[in-house]
Amino acid sequence: MPQFLDTTDPDFAARFDALLGAKREDAPDVDETVAAIIADVRARGDAAVLELTAKFDRLELTPETLAFSPEEIEAECARVSPEDRAALELAAQRIRAYHVRQMPEDQSWTDPDGATLGWRWTPVSAAGLYVPGGLASYPSSVLMNAIPAQVAGVKRLVICAPTPDGVCNPLVLLAARLAGVDTVYRIGGAQAIAALAYGTATIAPVDKITGPGNAFVAAAKRRVFGKVGIDMIAGPSEILVIADRNNDPDWIAVDLLSQAEHDESAQSLLITDDAAFGRAVAAAVEKRLETLERRVIAGASWRDYGAVIIVRDLAEAAALSDRIAPEHLELCVDDPDGLSRMVTHAGAIFLGQWTPEAIGDYIGGPNHVLPTARSARFSSGLSVMDFLKRTTLARMTPEALRAIGPAAERLAISESLEAHGLSVRARLERLNEGTE
Amino acid sequence: MPQFLDTTDPDFAARFDALLGAKREDAPDVDETVAAIIADVRARGDAAVLELTAKFDRLELTPETLAFSPEEIEAECARVSPEDRAALELAAQRIRAYHVRQMPEDQSWTDPDGATLGWRWTPVSAAGLYVPGGLASYPSSVLMNAIPAQVAGVKRLVICAPTPDGVCNPLVLLAARLAGVDTVYRIGGAQAIAALAYGTATIAPVDKITGPGNAFVAAAKRRVFGKVGIDMIAGPSEILVIADRNNDPDWIAVDLLSQAEHDESAQSLLITDDAAFGRAVAAAVEKRLETLERRVIAGASWRDYGAVIIVRDLAEAAALSDRIAPEHLELCVDDPDGLSRMVTHAGAIFLGQWTPEAIGDYIGGPNHVLPTARSARFSSGLSVMDFLKRTTLARMTPEALRAIGPAAERLAISESLEAHGLSVRARLERLNEGTE
Repeated sequence: MPQFLDTTDPDFAARFDALLGAKREDAPDVDETVAAIIADVRARGDAAVLELTAKFDRLELTPETLAFSPEEIEAECARVSPEDRAALELAAQRIRAYHVRQMPEDQSWTDPDGATLGWRWTPVSAAGLYVPGGLASYPSSVLMNAIPAQVAGVKRLVICAPTPDGVCNPLVLLAARLAGVDTVYRIGGAQAIAALAYGTATIAPVDKITGPGNAFVAAAKRRVFGKVGIDMIAGPSEILVIADRNNDPDWIAVDLLSQAEHDESAQSLLITDDAAFGRAVAAAVEKRLETLERRVIAGASWRDYGAVIIVRDLAEAAALSDRIAPEHLELCVDDPDGLSRMVTHAGAIFLGQWTPEAIGDYIGGPNHVLPTARSARFSSGLSVMDFLKRTTLARMTPEALRAIGPAAERLAISESLEAHGLSVRARLERLNEGTE
Repeated sequence: MPQFLDTTDPDFAARFDALLGAKREDAPDVDETVAAIIADVRARGDAAVLELTAKFDRLELTPETLAFSPEEIEAECARVSPEDRAALELAAQRIRAYHVRQMPEDQSWTDPDGATLGWRWTPVSAAGLYVPGGLASYPSSVLMNAIPAQVAGVKRLVICAPTPDGVCNPLVLLAARLAGVDTVYRIGGAQAIAALAYGTATIAPVDKITGPGNAFVAAAKRRVFGKVGIDMIAGPSEILVIADRNNDPDWIAVDLLSQAEHDESAQSLLITDDAAFGRAVAAAVEKRLETLERRVIAGASWRDYGAVIIVRDLAEAAALSDRIAPEHLELCVDDPDGLSRMVTHAGAIFLGQWTPEAIGDYIGGPNHVLPTARSARFSSGLSVMDFLKRTTLARMTPEALRAIGPAAERLAISESLEAHGLSVRARLERLNEGTE
């Protein structure tokens, strides 16, 4: 059973703090190993990548077979069932339709002083997406990472997806094709991140790397950050469900389990204003756990990090939610829109009892790469913006410079930056000579 | 004299690569010291902050005097000359007018399946801005960091600004007041970053930390990243000027020197299609260096990292510029807008000979916190967006779930995530019973 907390308990504040502060992730320190791998790939390029792939993935490749050939991709995609293909195509179409709306607009205007100002958005030239091998090789993550890049206009989009013992997931290759990925390299680990960041004879470097990975991949992404851009380093998944008594306890139970089944370190929380309903949900979770395929993982997560929190009213629920800043927030209440407006910090909100979080994982449209570990206080899910950058633009006329230049010169002098001031002064003097 | 390169030289490619690859920054490894300081502040809070401030800044404070009092701020601001005040007010007004336009809009729409989708932007609740002490204590940086936060709607905005030996810059305090900063703490270094990230009895923690700093501050920001959001870790400043022969060589010379005077590691580059003009600019730089206040710094930067690159035509200049991905790009040519459209990677572009880069440092309106070290390939300058985060929203109706739910369930099963599928299945079964 998970913890039960009640905001009317005298020790609630301390127990809630402990829940928030619980360290769920125990990432091994692989930084030295990763540093050595990156140095090796920088020094020896393809040779290092091939050796490390043979060692870790038990797969002998050559520079020519580092990437899947078009024929191999075609053959793998042909293995996908028509039903799976249709589902993936619908997901790709809906994710694309959502992300297209995120494209920001360029702006340009001329102010009363005659200065023309604005900005322009441009895509990164090349992006690399990491896709884990084995159990966590999710075609949905391929769509969620690659489609925003494609929508942003990234010219070259490649994937690194390890295929241990040569085993690959045909749905991953189909998702890559649906999302406009140019090349899929069958390499993984820190060596793949190093190859993407620094390039090898076969693999051209990229400017941005996104996608989930194990501790080695995460450490490598941290290390190459600055040389290239990276997305967030995601922690274990989380869900907070706020539900009143007008819900089927079993629906809420499976919603909680849908995060718990990801990882023993995942966290599923329920806040309700009805203690009896809270107990009913906990009982429904236990019942589902009897038969769930991933019951060992989901059970450990629910037992160690799950909690049911009883509140006096929904306003209290919203306030607690903001302290949790959940990755996923389900609002299963009569007026989910109203409750949603009381919440400030959440990665994604799922409104009403007909919107299970899993809809957002696959097919709703919004991105499923979301801020974990309370980082929704200051960061957002993956979006088209992650593959764009903004160049600011400014153009002065002689009149504009005459109007605002003297203030710039004065501020430069106050900061003891003489040449800054002189760059304005030289031009103002020409204007004062009256020759312009 | 700086390097001269010519794209028609047989060794141009190698020399240009060497120029791009030059390691300009030699940051000392202070990571262990910083880790110890952060641990100390986490363990002992105010006591650690006060001791470290006494040790490094030779300043004895108490919890009551950690922050400037309103009376102290008033008294310091009164020391600012009317001319400096007017310049700072004009800068604040123009920076605000530019950044107000960056506020993104919320969106909500209902798609043909009946799913209501969208997103909402909200500000981070609290932000902390670091302002270095001593020579690099720039009031313009206070405006450039604090105004975007204020425009975003950040509720609590604080500054940490060390005052070694008790000396403070009244313009910094005035800038803070103009930008709506709530509190200015007179502390600095890694201890200030730790206090902002983790909080002490006197200093409430913030969610986002921005602003420049020395190696200790940069290392501390890297360490607290994840616990709080941070802005970029900025490297030494850079400028690339692309100029044709129709420019006054002295104007271009002072523009180049306005970056060179920041730091011996700064880099000033000129690309021109006229070799004689390039030599004239280099001569003008030497002449200005004879009298410039910061001639030792600016001269070292120009000699060690400066370069004049002769190109065949401006298209070649644009292509080289994209390989450099400069922080600041000045286009002093007849058609700067046309040339600007040939450029993809730059932090800020200054169009035409009447727009010296220093205008952008102080008063143009765009932000002067910009991506350095080629990171304009994948990142943008500071903006209102850095103080906002996006929550995605999704609401299904029973009809929408009936339309797209089965595809979600199928994808969940293909990823072996049974509970994800069950959370959709449980609801679809209710619909199939026909009771909804």
